[in-house]
Amino acid sequence: MSRDVAIIGVGLSKWGELWEQSLRDIFVDAALAAIADAGVEKIDSMYVGNMSAGIFNGQEHLASVLADYLGVAPIPAARVESACASGSLALKMGYMDVALGMSEVVLVGGVEKMTDVTGDVATYALATAADQDYEVFNGVTFPGLYAMMARAHMEKYGTTREQLAEVSVKNHYHGSMNPVAQYPFKITVEDVLNSVMVADPLRILDCSPITDGAAAVILCPLEMAKKIGKKQPVKILGLGHATDSIALHSRADVTTLPATTKAAQAAYKMADVKPEDLDLIEVHDCFSIAEIVVMESIGLVEPGKGGPAVASGMTRLGGKIPVNVSGGLKSKGHPVGATGVAQAVEIVTQLRGEAGGRQVQNARLGMTQNMGGSGGSALVHIFRVEE
Amino acid sequence: MSRDVAIIGVGLSKWGELWEQSLRDIFVDAALAAIADAGVEKIDSMYVGNMSAGIFNGQEHLASVLADYLGVAPIPAARVESACASGSLALKMGYMDVALGMSEVVLVGGVEKMTDVTGDVATYALATAADQDYEVFNGVTFPGLYAMMARAHMEKYGTTREQLAEVSVKNHYHGSMNPVAQYPFKITVEDVLNSVMVADPLRILDCSPITDGAAAVILCPLEMAKKIGKKQPVKILGLGHATDSIALHSRADVTTLPATTKAAQAAYKMADVKPEDLDLIEVHDCFSIAEIVVMESIGLVEPGKGGPAVASGMTRLGGKIPVNVSGGLKSKGHPVGATGVAQAVEIVTQLRGEAGGRQVQNARLGMTQNMGGSGGSALVHIFRVEE
Repeated sequence: MSRDVAIIGVGLSKWGELWEQSLRDIFVDAALAAIADAGVEKIDSMYVGNMSAGIFNGQEHLASVLADYLGVAPIPAARVESACASGSLALKMGYMDVALGMSEVVLVGGVEKMTDVTGDVATYALATAADQDYEVFNGVTFPGLYAMMARAHMEKYGTTREQLAEVSVKNHYHGSMNPVAQYPFKITVEDVLNSVMVADPLRILDCSPITDGAAAVILCPLEMAKKIGKKQPVKILGLGHATDSIALHSRADVTTLPATTKAAQAAYKMADVKPEDLDLIEVHDCFSIAEIVVMESIGLVEPGKGGPAVASGMTRLGGKIPVNVSGGLKSKGHPVGATGVAQAVEIVTQLRGEAGGRQVQNARLGMTQNMGGSGGSALVHIFRVEE
Repeated sequence: MSRDVAIIGVGLSKWGELWEQSLRDIFVDAALAAIADAGVEKIDSMYVGNMSAGIFNGQEHLASVLADYLGVAPIPAARVESACASGSLALKMGYMDVALGMSEVVLVGGVEKMTDVTGDVATYALATAADQDYEVFNGVTFPGLYAMMARAHMEKYGTTREQLAEVSVKNHYHGSMNPVAQYPFKITVEDVLNSVMVADPLRILDCSPITDGAAAVILCPLEMAKKIGKKQPVKILGLGHATDSIALHSRADVTTLPATTKAAQAAYKMADVKPEDLDLIEVHDCFSIAEIVVMESIGLVEPGKGGPAVASGMTRLGGKIPVNVSGGLKSKGHPVGATGVAQAVEIVTQLRGEAGGRQVQNARLGMTQNMGGSGGSALVHIFRVEE
């Protein structure tokens, strides 16, 4: 039988344009914060989610670099990559390591240092998550891909331009209460509608930013967590992971995200919970349309009802099921390899009741949804606080 | 209790300068060969070892791309990276997945498509496995790093230029019997000594080549393997994984490889075997000096005795303990992300008695040693054929 696994520590670096810090600096900041939060003295193994330090920083072999700089070498250290879902993939690997009994205390981190490049390198690096031979070669990058999804969703379901804007407005409202957020200010629907066009119908305030940042969590067996944890352990109750056609043009329907649906179903089954049991969710709002399609794909609302649901306030703090109370990728920022781990950090912070002004009351059960590219990979994880 | 895990299928693509094939083509060739060899109809999960498709091919999100092209999406698929040890890291992840019971049948692949770049891009990409901020920034790349290790080893132990050459001569002799080898011809000590200087004392025939190639293995629980396997199952008996300072200048002694030593010790312990029990070993001979230092670091010979041991014929086919009967990285080729998986393919082929002219007689127990960079990461795995 495998062992139950819990998170006993969480940490974040600063998030934003961190020109004064290097890739390794920000990773170490997050890792040390998580280690201090957990109160552990020793790490047995380490997993690092990172999308493209090769292109952004000229650095592969990243887990060894970071284990060395953190001062934990010679422990095993592995970098894992699934584009913007790399962080949640790292969490899955760390879970497997502890559940199997290979390690007792595992550090799972995610990091991306995206602002040290010039010109169009960041856009090029991000586009390596799409199909290089069949999509990128023909000139499409992610704003274009998500714009096509938005157009199709508007056409099929009547989703409105204003409903898309409501996603960004909500997430900036939430982010205004998050001290780590890169853009911690409120915006209005009018601000979104008047912002610069990126790829019709998506405007700049529909798009998550380029961010430097890192996040880390400490895992250990649940039984150990109950003994050594300084705070309430948060159990990893369910994990789901699936893939899909890498290219958008290969899919039968671009108004839904099948990998996210399959990952969510697997996580619900493993956790034995239903969407309506959840107290809060962090989802992958790389673009405003993404949050709407994800809400539908995870079964939170019926297909086509995501836009009206957001506009109704249902997913706002205080609503029926708050989504992205951290501010989401849009306001908090999106250092791609760190995002999945940072989502877990937010859920743990909320389940412990430590989220300050953005606290979801009586939160017991939370979920993260993290995806790569235009949904070619997705991971969904479910967490429950232990009393 | 975790489950025992076995390899039931192996496959390789062509290896060499494959200008007529893309990254995804060669991966699919290896994967389909492994699936056919195993006789399985369904894969539950997939791991891909790859060092730098981001730089070489403009393609991250690689596991989803490859799952899609192989036709196995929506299964979970993860790319893992530890520079030139990425393949062995993928094997470790696949082992964990099956041992834990998350999946029944897992495909573990490794791939690198290195020849589609121009100018010095390949050297740049490979150098991202070193410390970009402190080594590469100052102009050193891998031939230089291994040349420093060679100079130190010659100074400390009296290792000779001719002994280094004997590594390449032996591996080319072995490779001459391997149909997949990129350079399947014999060479002499004189050929090595007269070849072009790369980084004194290392000449071009001390260096492994730039290679396109892929390798794949199919894992399943040992109990299942005994029922469904078309051939003798090969049990994964031990796994070891460790890290070290990423930069050579941070190490107390550059004539040894501590991560390799720690990984080997962990694998020996898990497998409950000693170096003298082994029938053959595949090691990471990225440069001739590497094979000598690895032999010492895994405890095959005493420190300083690696050079004389190679010159004595001890590690040649027919000798006491054949090393790199595949031809090694030097003759077989070194598509960096594929190498660790290809080492496992060779061991399985040998343990099944299917290695043709390069067959090690009565081989029952084999080992692979695979490392990243100048030894900043290392993985050692031990395999035993089941009757």
